[in-house]
Amino acid sequence: MIYVVGFGPGDRKRMTNEAEEAIASADVVVGYTGYTALMKPLFPDKDYLETGMRGEIARCEVVVDLAQEGKNVALICSGDAGIYGMAALLLEILDRRNKTEEIDVHIVAGVTAALAGAALLGAPLGHDLAFISLSDLLTPWEVIEKRLLAAGDADFCIALYNPSSKGRKDHLKKACDLLLTVKDKDTVCGIADRIGREGEQTRILSLSELGEAETDMQSVVLIGNSMTKRVGDRMVTERGYLNKYG
Amino acid sequence: MIYVVGFGPGDRKRMTNEAEEAIASADVVVGYTGYTALMKPLFPDKDYLETGMRGEIARCEVVVDLAQEGKNVALICSGDAGIYGMAALLLEILDRRNKTEEIDVHIVAGVTAALAGAALLGAPLGHDLAFISLSDLLTPWEVIEKRLLAAGDADFCIALYNPSSKGRKDHLKKACDLLLTVKDKDTVCGIADRIGREGEQTRILSLSELGEAETDMQSVVLIGNSMTKRVGDRMVTERGYLNKYG
Repeated sequence: MIYVVGFGPGDRKRMTNEAEEAIASADVVVGYTGYTALMKPLFPDKDYLETGMRGEIARCEVVVDLAQEGKNVALICSGDAGIYGMAALLLEILDRRNKTEEIDVHIVAGVTAALAGAALLGAPLGHDLAFISLSDLLTPWEVIEKRLLAAGDADFCIALYNPSSKGRKDHLKKACDLLLTVKDKDTVCGIADRIGREGEQTRILSLSELGEAETDMQSVVLIGNSMTKRVGDRMVTERGYLNKYG
Repeated sequence: MIYVVGFGPGDRKRMTNEAEEAIASADVVVGYTGYTALMKPLFPDKDYLETGMRGEIARCEVVVDLAQEGKNVALICSGDAGIYGMAALLLEILDRRNKTEEIDVHIVAGVTAALAGAALLGAPLGHDLAFISLSDLLTPWEVIEKRLLAAGDADFCIALYNPSSKGRKDHLKKACDLLLTVKDKDTVCGIADRIGREGEQTRILSLSELGEAETDMQSVVLIGNSMTKRVGDRMVTERGYLNKYG
């Protein structure tokens, strides 16, 4: 049995009961070192098997190997199991090895960063919404640009994952410059950093300021639509109840 | 103190610890009757206050009234508190009544239907993703059409909320007809109905079949991107690891 578990941002309070049970029942917990480091204090008695970043295929192969040996394995992902997570790759590799019938897979959904970050910032994602990753390791930058423009032009709220990393310092700046061609420079934006972890913080700023903001792989960036405003120290996108009935 | 609580699809296993604690600690639990009906069996000893559909503003006003009386109130939402939930409206109404400083609000993120449905279907949302509601009660249909076309044309995975209701039987059909102008008719699609509730089921079908499918307000519809495929009895959108490193 394989569980692909989205454990949420990384603290116990934002985990689902199902995620806790899956990890607690596993013989081995497999994940990227950054994620096993978060789960070890919560589940200290488990056996962990860690693989580095960009070791995604090897990680899934190991999970299938362990399951074939009869182990219950939890493959852990931060946030959700599917949103920029490991669930799809695991299912593909299982299929490539013709083990889909033999090994049971249970996918456990979790609170993805955009949702957890939104809750900290207020209610910025109160209307139609696009999730876009700014990582171009697997997706050509031209595709990312096309999606940014499409989402901006159609006035979606936007959640940016992987806004920058050591190798891609300028991606957020490039994304903002592009969005500024179709969105107002005063659009309300927010950043949530290290949600549920040491140093958790939020910031609210305008789209014209966002491009210069420091972010890293533990940041999620939320960009408002044309209705988004600051309400006190929060970011709020009202769906339209007050305009219509208010 | 007001908690705006996303309780997930409706069963205990997909609730976060934070959601459970917020409801357990509330003096009064306020929500749409369809949602209080789901929570009553899980938290039978709480006081509940129910309002009907389209009673959203009145519901938030009551929550603020109760908080002013010194009560701890949990305003409950299915899925997430912010994604098509009550968090934004509650914050706006609190602001309109100038109570933002006086009353503490804590937003509790939850597993929204698209994520829970995706986990049941496999891993359909493994890449950039758009959430679109097909309800035109608050959003002009032309705006919805623009967003559908933008998301389809830029090859987002798409999650459709509120695909149909008694008053809007043909919205899903109209949305599919529009998407067929920019997406392949064989695009793999999925439907998850009544997640975590009596009668939970999933279906996988093509975009050309989707328009004729029966859905209701307890269905979420997931539409693949150009990379989405069927793997066994699942729907999978691989992010590109296998193409690049595979």
